Amino acid sequence: MNKPVFSQLNPPQRLLMGPGPINADPRVLRAMSAPLIGQYDPAMTAYMNEVMMLYRSVFRTSNDWTLLVDGTSRAGIEAILVSAIRPGDKVLVPVFGRFGHLLCEIARRCQAEVHTIETPWGTVFTPDQIEEAIKRVRPTMLLTVHGDTSTTMRQPLEELGAICRRYGVLFYTDATATLGGNPLETDAWGLDAVSAGMQKCLGGSAGTSPITLSEQMADSITRRRHVEEGIRDNRHQDGDEPIISSNYFDLAMIMDYWGSERLNHHTEATSALYGARECARLIVQEGVEAGIARHQLHGAALRAGVEAMGLEVFGDPRHKMNNVLGINIPDGLHDQQIRECMLNDFGIEIGTSFGPLKGKMWRIGTMGYNARKDCVLQTLAALEATLNRYGFKTVQGAGMEAAWNSYAN
Amino acid sequence: MNKPVFSQLNPPQRLLMGPGPINADPRVLRAMSAPLIGQYDPAMTAYMNEVMMLYRSVFRTSNDWTLLVDGTSRAGIEAILVSAIRPGDKVLVPVFGRFGHLLCEIARRCQAEVHTIETPWGTVFTPDQIEEAIKRVRPTMLLTVHGDTSTTMRQPLEELGAICRRYGVLFYTDATATLGGNPLETDAWGLDAVSAGMQKCLGGSAGTSPITLSEQMADSITRRRHVEEGIRDNRHQDGDEPIISSNYFDLAMIMDYWGSERLNHHTEATSALYGARECARLIVQEGVEAGIARHQLHGAALRAGVEAMGLEVFGDPRHKMNNVLGINIPDGLHDQQIRECMLNDFGIEIGTSFGPLKGKMWRIGTMGYNARKDCVLQTLAALEATLNRYGFKTVQGAGMEAAWNSYAN
Repeated sequence: MNKPVFSQLNPPQRLLMGPGPINADPRVLRAMSAPLIGQYDPAMTAYMNEVMMLYRSVFRTSNDWTLLVDGTSRAGIEAILVSAIRPGDKVLVPVFGRFGHLLCEIARRCQAEVHTIETPWGTVFTPDQIEEAIKRVRPTMLLTVHGDTSTTMRQPLEELGAICRRYGVLFYTDATATLGGNPLETDAWGLDAVSAGMQKCLGGSAGTSPITLSEQMADSITRRRHVEEGIRDNRHQDGDEPIISSNYFDLAMIMDYWGSERLNHHTEATSALYGARECARLIVQEGVEAGIARHQLHGAALRAGVEAMGLEVFGDPRHKMNNVLGINIPDGLHDQQIRECMLNDFGIEIGTSFGPLKGKMWRIGTMGYNARKDCVLQTLAALEATLNRYGFKTVQGAGMEAAWNSYAN
Repeated sequence: MNKPVFSQLNPPQRLLMGPGPINADPRVLRAMSAPLIGQYDPAMTAYMNEVMMLYRSVFRTSNDWTLLVDGTSRAGIEAILVSAIRPGDKVLVPVFGRFGHLLCEIARRCQAEVHTIETPWGTVFTPDQIEEAIKRVRPTMLLTVHGDTSTTMRQPLEELGAICRRYGVLFYTDATATLGGNPLETDAWGLDAVSAGMQKCLGGSAGTSPITLSEQMADSITRRRHVEEGIRDNRHQDGDEPIISSNYFDLAMIMDYWGSERLNHHTEATSALYGARECARLIVQEGVEAGIARHQLHGAALRAGVEAMGLEVFGDPRHKMNNVLGINIPDGLHDQQIRECMLNDFGIEIGTSFGPLKGKMWRIGTMGYNARKDCVLQTLAALEATLNRYGFKTVQGAGMEAAWNSYAN
């Protein structure tokens, strides 16, 4: 049998303007290719400490426990949920898109009693609606999505921390799609846990998930700490806190690994840590607020251009994420045909949708390294050409002009 | 407040000769810095298919379900255990080192009834001992470690598959530390599941875990398949198979993502996948057997050199892994002092030990990209100089000569 021959990697050049992943900043990819060092090398533990400091700035927090979970963004979500939720705990999930359903799904696997409130896709909740549900359900945790890319909506979180405090509820948000591109104030908003991912506004490559835990959340988790030896010997007693059902996602252990004790847990995903450090370093260098303003600027220009082309934007405009735009697909146009033309002829990827919006909406992202004028203008020009080709007539040049004007204002 | 200034990554150059991580092959690091592409880009799904083909060669299997779990090697272990073990299942773990204990620990968190047999560190089990225990326990799964770096021992697995078949037991091995550097025959040995990691003999960077599942194992797991929607709506009925308690590690979902349906699960850790593909591509190019022979060659030279220096090798020599050598620390020498001199003055990392061997054994690895003559000879020369400095007198040059002779034979 002949061995199949596999050639060197040679991925096509793409401009990734979907809801993520986006093109990683080349500086991040270079950092990821730095030589490895040992897990307990003083240089490595110094980098781990720097990662903690840098992500405190990005998350806007003074939380000690600000660290990485090795896996994609949903690894960070699951680590927080499986470590914090005790079987039988009530949790409340306000669902305004697909990723709210994901939180429900993971919480159910953690044996939570899951309560939801729902709102039509394209809208978000008022603080009153959430307080009302908290009063009714009396959950131990409120699980929110900050920005749900499935609908492009951003749930206001500013007032929820105070509400949670009043009812003794721990407050979590999934900021995978928002961190770095939208305001997020972990401490000022009273968040007890936040998780994120690398492949959106942070400008990196998926593979490790930054999280931050308030002191109260960390205490709640470390009360469930079991040393490996105890579990091995079945020494945990009735009456103890229930064991965390995952080893890999046991944040009590992961805190002991990132903390001063440096107890061995997993082998660090060193290249991913290098990448995460570089992402945060670049953000801190630019300034967290400046980075958010950049996402706002380019998101607004994209939107201005799209609307001037005669396309309609999806969802409540008061609650849009800065970094993803939903476009209602006009009658007579075929979702996939347009996207394939964009990808195959221009090398530009835009996103489709799923669930109730499948085939009805495109999603265009402007985030991380791709929150840039050239990316926005290239995408608009290609989109206009493609739409015209397939029969959707625009006023020639109106989209581009609106985008230029948006930049000029 | 002044912003702290963080400089570009600049890790020190280290020769990583511990039990892993080792220096990644520079070609792998370069592959990991390739531009990202979208998750459903035809180029990406083609790479996923190539990864499956390549790891079939490395695992020596024709298993369809040969894929990556995004996370470090223990992510692969946990994904298999949490997906395959039903609460209350009996599992048998032959424990001959630290990583056997880890399997017990993870299995307990999966609510298995865990049965163990133990053997002193530095020894392994005979097939008879394992068959005896299987007859007594009647487990649903046998969970083994192929090579346990904590003791440097390699458990013979050749005969266990047939035994497992006789008793209707599913057969798993953790090959994190052995795959690519020691013979491992998934199909010929009747293994139902194998997991591995990148940072040992595969010459990569930790962050994704290759696994392979037999048809029988895959069937056992997919019987527990629940669609996200069902879980969301609590639609699984009594009498159904118990739900897999993790979303991230739900192999039924991960198979649907890697399979022809390509159902969305997590966002792929693309850089890690690029790296994993390059590791396997280089191994297949060298030839799987040739790679193993290379590990054998350099491991033997290291051992010959160490013994000729008057040092004693740990454990049963008939069952040593090719790629990690345990050295009993001579009386009067201080574990950490020697390792620090090696690291700080020569830039060479060797490993300490833990558990019952803490402070008593060094571990030197020759694996992956570092299974090379120059790495072995540099390490021996530095070790001899360091030992002499701290009062352990060797016959000058004997270690080097023995290593050269080992290469000449």
